[in-house]
Amino acid sequence: MILKNKIHLVLATLLFVMVSCKAQNISKTKKSAKLEHPSLILTKSGVEKIKANLGSVPLFDRTLATVQAEVDAEILNGIEVPIPKDFSGGYTHERHKKNFLIIQKAGVLYQILDDEKYAKYVKDMLFQYAKIYPTLPVHPQTRSYARGKLFWQCLNDSNWLVYTSQAYDCVYNYLTEKERNYLEKDLFRPFAKFISVDNPQFYNRVHNHSTWGNVAVGMIALVMDDSKLLETALHGLKKDNIDPNAKDNDGGFIKKKGQKVGFLANLEEPFSPDGYYTEGPYYQRYAMYPFLVFAEALQNVKPELKIFEYKNGVLLKSINTLLNLTDTEGNFFPLNDGQKGMSYFSRELVSAVDIGYYYGGNQTDLLSIAKDQGEVLLDDTGLAVAIGIRDGLETPFVKKSINLTDGKNGDEGGVAILRAPGSKEDLTLVMKYSAHGLSHGHFDKLSFSYYEGGHEVLQDYGMSRYVNIQQKGGGNYLKENTTWAKQTIAHNTVIQNETSHFKGDFETGSSYHSEKYLFDVSNPKVQVISATESNAYPGTTLHRTQAIIKQDGFENPYLLDIVKINSETENQYDLPFYYFGQIMSTNFKYNVPEVLKPLGSKNGYQHLWNTGEGKSDSGNAKLSWFNKERFYTVTSVVSNEDELIFTRIGAKDPDFNLRNDPGFMIRKKNTKDTYFVNLVESHGHYDPVVEIATNAFSSVKNLKIAYSDEAYVAIQIETNSNDNLFLFSLKDSSNTSKHQIKIDNKTYEWIGAYKLTEINK
Amino acid sequence: MILKNKIHLVLATLLFVMVSCKAQNISKTKKSAKLEHPSLILTKSGVEKIKANLGSVPLFDRTLATVQAEVDAEILNGIEVPIPKDFSGGYTHERHKKNFLIIQKAGVLYQILDDEKYAKYVKDMLFQYAKIYPTLPVHPQTRSYARGKLFWQCLNDSNWLVYTSQAYDCVYNYLTEKERNYLEKDLFRPFAKFISVDNPQFYNRVHNHSTWGNVAVGMIALVMDDSKLLETALHGLKKDNIDPNAKDNDGGFIKKKGQKVGFLANLEEPFSPDGYYTEGPYYQRYAMYPFLVFAEALQNVKPELKIFEYKNGVLLKSINTLLNLTDTEGNFFPLNDGQKGMSYFSRELVSAVDIGYYYGGNQTDLLSIAKDQGEVLLDDTGLAVAIGIRDGLETPFVKKSINLTDGKNGDEGGVAILRAPGSKEDLTLVMKYSAHGLSHGHFDKLSFSYYEGGHEVLQDYGMSRYVNIQQKGGGNYLKENTTWAKQTIAHNTVIQNETSHFKGDFETGSSYHSEKYLFDVSNPKVQVISATESNAYPGTTLHRTQAIIKQDGFENPYLLDIVKINSETENQYDLPFYYFGQIMSTNFKYNVPEVLKPLGSKNGYQHLWNTGEGKSDSGNAKLSWFNKERFYTVTSVVSNEDELIFTRIGAKDPDFNLRNDPGFMIRKKNTKDTYFVNLVESHGHYDPVVEIATNAFSSVKNLKIAYSDEAYVAIQIETNSNDNLFLFSLKDSSNTSKHQIKIDNKTYEWIGAYKLTEINK
Repeated sequence: MILKNKIHLVLATLLFVMVSCKAQNISKTKKSAKLEHPSLILTKSGVEKIKANLGSVPLFDRTLATVQAEVDAEILNGIEVPIPKDFSGGYTHERHKKNFLIIQKAGVLYQILDDEKYAKYVKDMLFQYAKIYPTLPVHPQTRSYARGKLFWQCLNDSNWLVYTSQAYDCVYNYLTEKERNYLEKDLFRPFAKFISVDNPQFYNRVHNHSTWGNVAVGMIALVMDDSKLLETALHGLKKDNIDPNAKDNDGGFIKKKGQKVGFLANLEEPFSPDGYYTEGPYYQRYAMYPFLVFAEALQNVKPELKIFEYKNGVLLKSINTLLNLTDTEGNFFPLNDGQKGMSYFSRELVSAVDIGYYYGGNQTDLLSIAKDQGEVLLDDTGLAVAIGIRDGLETPFVKKSINLTDGKNGDEGGVAILRAPGSKEDLTLVMKYSAHGLSHGHFDKLSFSYYEGGHEVLQDYGMSRYVNIQQKGGGNYLKENTTWAKQTIAHNTVIQNETSHFKGDFETGSSYHSEKYLFDVSNPKVQVISATESNAYPGTTLHRTQAIIKQDGFENPYLLDIVKINSETENQYDLPFYYFGQIMSTNFKYNVPEVLKPLGSKNGYQHLWNTGEGKSDSGNAKLSWFNKERFYTVTSVVSNEDELIFTRIGAKDPDFNLRNDPGFMIRKKNTKDTYFVNLVESHGHYDPVVEIATNAFSSVKNLKIAYSDEAYVAIQIETNSNDNLFLFSLKDSSNTSKHQIKIDNKTYEWIGAYKLTEINK
Repeated sequence: MILKNKIHLVLATLLFVMVSCKAQNISKTKKSAKLEHPSLILTKSGVEKIKANLGSVPLFDRTLATVQAEVDAEILNGIEVPIPKDFSGGYTHERHKKNFLIIQKAGVLYQILDDEKYAKYVKDMLFQYAKIYPTLPVHPQTRSYARGKLFWQCLNDSNWLVYTSQAYDCVYNYLTEKERNYLEKDLFRPFAKFISVDNPQFYNRVHNHSTWGNVAVGMIALVMDDSKLLETALHGLKKDNIDPNAKDNDGGFIKKKGQKVGFLANLEEPFSPDGYYTEGPYYQRYAMYPFLVFAEALQNVKPELKIFEYKNGVLLKSINTLLNLTDTEGNFFPLNDGQKGMSYFSRELVSAVDIGYYYGGNQTDLLSIAKDQGEVLLDDTGLAVAIGIRDGLETPFVKKSINLTDGKNGDEGGVAILRAPGSKEDLTLVMKYSAHGLSHGHFDKLSFSYYEGGHEVLQDYGMSRYVNIQQKGGGNYLKENTTWAKQTIAHNTVIQNETSHFKGDFETGSSYHSEKYLFDVSNPKVQVISATESNAYPGTTLHRTQAIIKQDGFENPYLLDIVKINSETENQYDLPFYYFGQIMSTNFKYNVPEVLKPLGSKNGYQHLWNTGEGKSDSGNAKLSWFNKERFYTVTSVVSNEDELIFTRIGAKDPDFNLRNDPGFMIRKKNTKDTYFVNLVESHGHYDPVVEIATNAFSSVKNLKIAYSDEAYVAIQIETNSNDNLFLFSLKDSSNTSKHQIKIDNKTYEWIGAYKLTEINK
């Protein structure tokens, strides 16, 4: 699938070289005219300001001391530029990665501290790279669709150039013109050419990979003041001849026919107007660094581009969006391929917050995040943040309930986050009804995850990968990412006939998105998200409504979850819940098998052990579990025929790549139209030091569908102290329409799509 | 099995009533002579001192404010004394428990704050209890061998009286003589009689239950100044007619023939001279409160008893011992039946530390524990501690490597703790070669657990019970405690022929203990514990030697584990390791089954799923895993025939009572004499925010038995940078003996039992 049209490559190369040469001439002219150094991230005036403030801005000084200690240790250690050999996690990979991180810092230290040892370190390292680069073959590891030279993929080579460009900028004037010419000729220009012209399938895309590639070329173009090269960064290669059917290693398309490419296209397309990045927060975080650092550089060198105002200021907006895509501890929700544990404490988010504060109008709530992060960028933006913190300007960053549209124009579904304060910590629902999310997307329409504070109550599995841990498939995606993590069954959503949404087909899935039906958080006691999906299973419509409700008789807000299914055919529907911890009790009988068998043979089912099965004849299935000192209960409306299945992940896992987490599943067989109705409670507490269990039991006495037709559904929630109805209009989400239904001869009327009302008996 | 010799009970009752009446007369005489109130925990002079210091001792003031807020809330809430009905975790149980905890605090507040509302609250509650007690039947739950009245077991009734006696003491003078007579006649005396005379099988034992019973009677005896009753507390009932074969619910014997009973016997027998309590730290913690609070009361009222000097001051020593039986976070090692998460932050340890400081010569290292605890007792001892902290007197509590003998005379094996500082946190080995530990003991001779900081690297399962969580078997021991947690296979030790030590028979197990061979921590770089067990499997001798070794070429100290087995017969030997987290890699091939089957059918094996099997032909089996951001590797010397088995707990668990933790097992079949040799490393780090894995691979290149005969073993530990021998004398542990062996024609000589030496090639 990898492009190998040699003739075109040769032509493109020729063109590039010509453009490059011409650009060199132009830039030489311009350079002598005015470009000063540093000018990208650090600026001459910025450096002066930093120097003037040294010793008086604690957070900046602390960061500087830490960075200095780190760089000094590396200088002592000596420079190592090994011949590339390993995958991520391996020695040469990690060494080159460390090199570019350190060289960027050394450049900054040279500027701020005026100590030549740092400039010399940068120069020496650059020379070592320049020495090996011209004869360096393509990386020996063959797995990537776009192999790099220093690393196994061009992506990491691009990382290298993004950071190294900054170092070069910082020592530009320390070097002689001859030295610069040598570095540019033997290292930077061929490097930029390799990741662009030589790898158009990598460079000329809309993808986080290409963003890195474009920015790498753009950054070095800015340092070298090469406007033609910059043009290539902003708008991509003019020619690439990419096969419109070509795919990358993750199964994602390289490039659609006629698609715009380059940095601006990468800014335009994957970001929705709300600043949601279609791949999900894990990759948004990854892409934020090149996006923002290049934006900062462009703002400094080419202010006339007004890059921060591009697409209604989407770059700055996306910072706020990304911060909202975290739990109370700052961990990103692992939507699509996301490694758990990644958080706003990452270096990319330190950049994002500092740049966002500086260029986004000094929002003081960002200062509280920066204070948490405990470090700042060593540039104008970081200085501004540190001064703001020193001066006590920070205000809390309040994460609210929010709906984030997906798609370039914000019309391809989205992700809704409902938050409500609980007795102990915030409860947070993340409901996903977005577009597919490019090659890192999962087949999980209308899925959700649920959090209490920083704990996962009902999890999104995230990805099956140990990033940069060599033992695990070279730190790359494991095959179980495809066979499990991407499959629908790995998510808390409906699976029809044991087949993933869109039959697990990337091309089909990429053509569709779910539709928002309602997002309404105007009443903090009843917050609602409702969305539909009618393409995942042709002939079947799924309509999921989730509400976080704060109600008397419950210690905490609870999650009410209503899935309405309409189908033209009889099917089997499964709805799993992936909880954590220990089962406390059920209200139904179940049997555990003598021997564990996989629940199915494909589409992810082959990875689930069936650890028990039961049925309930009470109309409700109730499962309580205990995790992190707290009790949780899911109460579900079920029929006598519904199968209640306990599972554990881990079957057919020959390399023990999967986490062996538990699940609970409700299965309805031979059904056309039906409902799944569930109520999830967090309740009580148990501390093993005190050994007292409080509120250890569910407050739900009975849950039932009190009414349903094509247009309405009413869910009755009975506790020991009260009895409530959640009335919902399924066909009209207007907040002014009037509705009326009759239940038990009593008429209920309401205005707007939903109402929670007490039943007075 | 419960005693029901009615005639004897009647006689005993008669005797008790006579003694009681007589005592009442005596006490009346004595009372008018001098006993003042309060006198047990608070004293008149102590209260004056406390009042004089109010407002000037921050930790004391804070604790007081917290307690006051708690009691005030309860007073507002109103008194509830429900008719007993529930097991632990249930409403009536938890309410009565809360009552006794609150009433004790209210009594203290009355004394310190001179506010009558607290006295009235105590009085009103006592009156409500006095009103129901005379007609209260035995508790309706029938599970206990000694059912209480307020609670399902006499144990909890005794808890009640221990606390309530203190409250009574505090309001003694607030009550009229008539009120006191009423309370004593209708509540306290019949209460004391019920838990002693009416339940000798509970009261006349050596067991933590009886300790509580004895102390309950002793405390109320001290308040009522009833010396005869006090005598019953100190030395037990003179008559009980307990069947020497009778057992309690846990399968423990009630009383051996001729065994001494009462408080002093309970102090004498279960504590070793080192202050180790034979049941283990979880129950030592539980027993510490009655032991120490009664000791404090005795010291105040009967100083002539010199209770703190009893058995060489074992009570005070035991506090230090118990603090040493915790990980770096203060959590107790869950030896025997112990619920994980119990720690020195429990209220019992707050008492213990404060009392230990006050009566034990003001050890300033206890202050640092008290400071961590963040609260103090509201009495003389707590005031002293709070003043010490206010004055900055605390010094660090340094937990050292320590050997704790078990058994009344310290000659019944023991528990060794080896600690060594690691690059990140302390590494701690807990090796158990003790006596059985009464009814809460596990069949796990020569087992161990291993910690890094507060993380379990290789776990002791602890008990199978959710204390006070009603849903789980009424909060009591689950049947899996017997079928799994107590079985040998649940522990990191050798199992022969899939049968637990002593065939899992309590009586046999209780007759034996392991023997220490060597404990030597004189060299901080090579700390050694070595012990033998020759009774667990008649005809087989196990000799386990474990060393924590700090050696060049390793990031952290490693654990070297050598088990030598000699047997008269051919057997199967299993050695499991219960780790946590995710498998990273192995150096051997294995297969995972299509269907999971239990590893065996009994003795705990029925609870283990066999999740994979392999063999190694390299002489070593190496398993690496990842947990809590760190890497771990166990490298084992194996033969081509050894079976390498992966397991997961959870088979045959119809109520999902077990934690589904993973394990790895080495199995040797048809073997008489053999060795298990293992090396456990903690290495490296991976932070998902930074996504860099450092030192992710084991440093062990090869591990082998370089020499072995009856008297010596030498283990060769080869890394990439060096090659070392651990030389060990198996028959002579003297530290002065000279040894000599020849390996590869080279002679090695050493003095003392062991030596670590580099091989110079």
